[in-house]
This record gives sequence, C-alpha cells and structure tokens, in this order.
Amino acid sequence: MTITLTAFRWVPPFAQGFVKDLRVRWALEEAGLAYEVTLIDPLIQASEAYRAWQPFGQVPAYRDDEVELFESGAIVLHVAAKSEALAPIDAADRARVSSWVIAALNSIEPYVVNLVQPSDARSAVKARTMLRERLAALAAWLGERDYLEDRFTAGDLMMTTVLRELVTSGVLDAFPTLDALRQRCEARPAFGRALEAQMRPFRENAPA
Amino acid sequence: MTITLTAFRWVPPFAQGFVKDLRVRWALEEAGLAYEVTLIDPLIQASEAYRAWQPFGQVPAYRDDEVELFESGAIVLHVAAKSEALAPIDAADRARVSSWVIAALNSIEPYVVNLVQPSDARSAVKARTMLRERLAALAAWLGERDYLEDRFTAGDLMMTTVLRELVTSGVLDAFPTLDALRQRCEARPAFGRALEAQMRPFRENAPA
Repeated sequence: MTITLTAFRWVPPFAQGFVKDLRVRWALEEAGLAYEVTLIDPLIQASEAYRAWQPFGQVPAYRDDEVELFESGAIVLHVAAKSEALAPIDAADRARVSSWVIAALNSIEPYVVNLVQPSDARSAVKARTMLRERLAALAAWLGERDYLEDRFTAGDLMMTTVLRELVTSGVLDAFPTLDALRQRCEARPAFGRALEAQMRPFRENAPA
Repeated sequence: MTITLTAFRWVPPFAQGFVKDLRVRWALEEAGLAYEVTLIDPLIQASEAYRAWQPFGQVPAYRDDEVELFESGAIVLHVAAKSEALAPIDAADRARVSSWVIAALNSIEPYVVNLVQPSDARSAVKARTMLRERLAALAAWLGERDYLEDRFTAGDLMMTTVLRELVTSGVLDAFPTLDALRQRCEARPAFGRALEAQMRPFRENAPA
C-alpha cells in the first residue's frame, strides 16, 4: 500500500507545527503506516491539477491504492478505519470516534479560529464567550477520564490538534483537565514524530 | 431496528427549518429508515442526563439498537453506511462521501455562520470575502455536474443544508450552479418530508 499526502514546502513561523497535514501524519504514525509526502507551494495550490485532487487548494490531500481523499477529518477517519490504534474494533465504539472527530471540527474548531484569528476586538470577545461555553461542556464530559472515551482514539487526536491552537491564548488555563488531555496526547511518540516530520521541510526550505 | 433522535419542541421563527436534526431526518428519509423523535427543550438540554448523550446539549442526538451518537455529520455518515441511497457501494467512492460531508462542515459552514451571525459589520465583510473564495472553489469543482460526485450522496445532502442558510444573504446570486445544486437537492421528496417533520412540532407548540 503506497500512501501519499500533500504538505507545504514552507509556511511562516506562526503556522509552523499547525498545518493540518499534522493530523494525518499523526494518525499514520499511530497506525504504523508508512507514507510519502508531496510538498506543494502556492502556485501548485492554485493549479487546476491540484484542485482536481483538493477542490479548495488546501493541504492535506491524500491518496492510497484505493482512494483519493481530502479534508483532514475524512482522511483521519479513513486511516482510523484501517487501524485498531485509532479506534476500537467493536463497531458501536468505533462509530463514536466519528462523533468526536466531527465535534472537534464543527463544535469546537470554528470558535477557536474566530478567537485566534479575530476580525476585531468585539468578535474576539464573542468567540471567547462561545468557546468557553463549549470547553466547559467538554470538560464536564471528560470528568476524570484520561481520554474522551475509555481509551485513546482518533477523537482525542483530532481534539488535541484543535486545543493546542489555544495554548498561547491562555483560554485553557481555566480548563486544566482539557489542557492535561492535550499534553497527554502530545506526549505520545507518534505525535512527536508527526510534528518533526512537518517541521523538517520548513527548516530545509526557509527563505535565506 | 429502532432509531431515535432528538429535536427541539419549539424554536423562534428564524431558526425554524434550519435546526440540525433536519440533516439526520433527511438522511433517514432518503434511506427509507423509520425513526422516532424525542422533543426536548432548554431545561432538558442543560440536564446531566442529556449531556451524557449529547455532551454539548445540542440537537440532534441519535440512538439505534447498536450505537449512541452525536454531531449531525457523524450521524449522517453512520446512516450513509447503512444505505446505498446515500453513498455508493464501492468502497473508494463511498470514502469520498466523507470528504464532502466534512468539507461542508469544516471548510464551508464556519464562514457561513460568521456571515449569517456576524459579531459586527467588519467581521461580516471578512466572512463574506472568505466564503466567496470557498464557494468559487466549490463551483469550479462542480462545473457542469449535477452533484458533487457522479450521483447524489450524503455529501450533497450536507452541502445543501449549509448552502440554504445563505439564501437570504444574496451570496448565492454570484454562484448560480451552486444555487441550482441546492434547489435540485431541496426538490427531493425526502427533503420535503424531513422539513415538514421538523416544522410540525413548531406549529403544534407555538407560544400562545
């Protein structure tokens, strides 16, 4: 099985370590699946050929011997379907993983983006209020558990990639169990390998 | 198989027809699967018992003989996995459906929400610019096709529920093929039945 995904050749420092191919790299590392990377740049992003693979010109796009996919959430779910490392074997438990992956993407991440990239001070305040409400609900669910379900899954992986965008904002200070979940997941060797793999080309291709 | 989902007893007129249980009702109607509805109100939403089913207190929550799920996207993917009406049999084609479901939720909907519920005029302008860019990419992908892939799938269903939130904004005027996709999908009998099923309790429970 040959797996290929796309990532950026270089991005500005603020985005390094946060580009969404990280999610797929992490999932593949957890699953123990080797992959190749095609590095792209803005010219390729805008090209008709790339848009036929990734309609919005984003990264990552994914290809294996069976499918061509886009959207990090869909790719992570596809990888999770191949590996017990990312989701339980039991079909009912496995289905819940998709609830958490999509909760991270649709119930948490939009407020994180609005907080981290606000159009102005007032929208930042609104985003912070809405985000805090969602994080309080998430913390109430988590309780004293180590993971969102009774073991590490792709849901924790996806939620961690969303929560870590909040670290510099200080919002997580009020939610220590969520920050501990994030740190617990970021401490996994597979996360470290994925992050290093994203960062390496940024170092190699840094503007002179 | 007994399928139960939650929906609101009543919501204000601006939200009627747009509550997210519509997506699941529509998917179930397409799949020809009967379902029961548990109507809830803000008191139930806030209750510990409901949060154990839907951690954020939202609708819909879903239950069948096998699983308990939340997040409309995850539930629609679960229903799609049961029915050829929502996704092709072929595994590779089927996987692409999740790319489109998640694209609707993560690459389009956040900008729609920011446009339709802006915190102020400036954030509305920013949201409109970003949304137009995404819609232009989506229209370029769609081209002259009738659906996002070569047949109706859960991806079109999800994208339609996102696009229809834009109708009153006028944004779709610049994207006639996307508006035609929306209208083509809304014309499906299953959509009509789902919409009517959401609206009925709102009429029955309207404040005096």
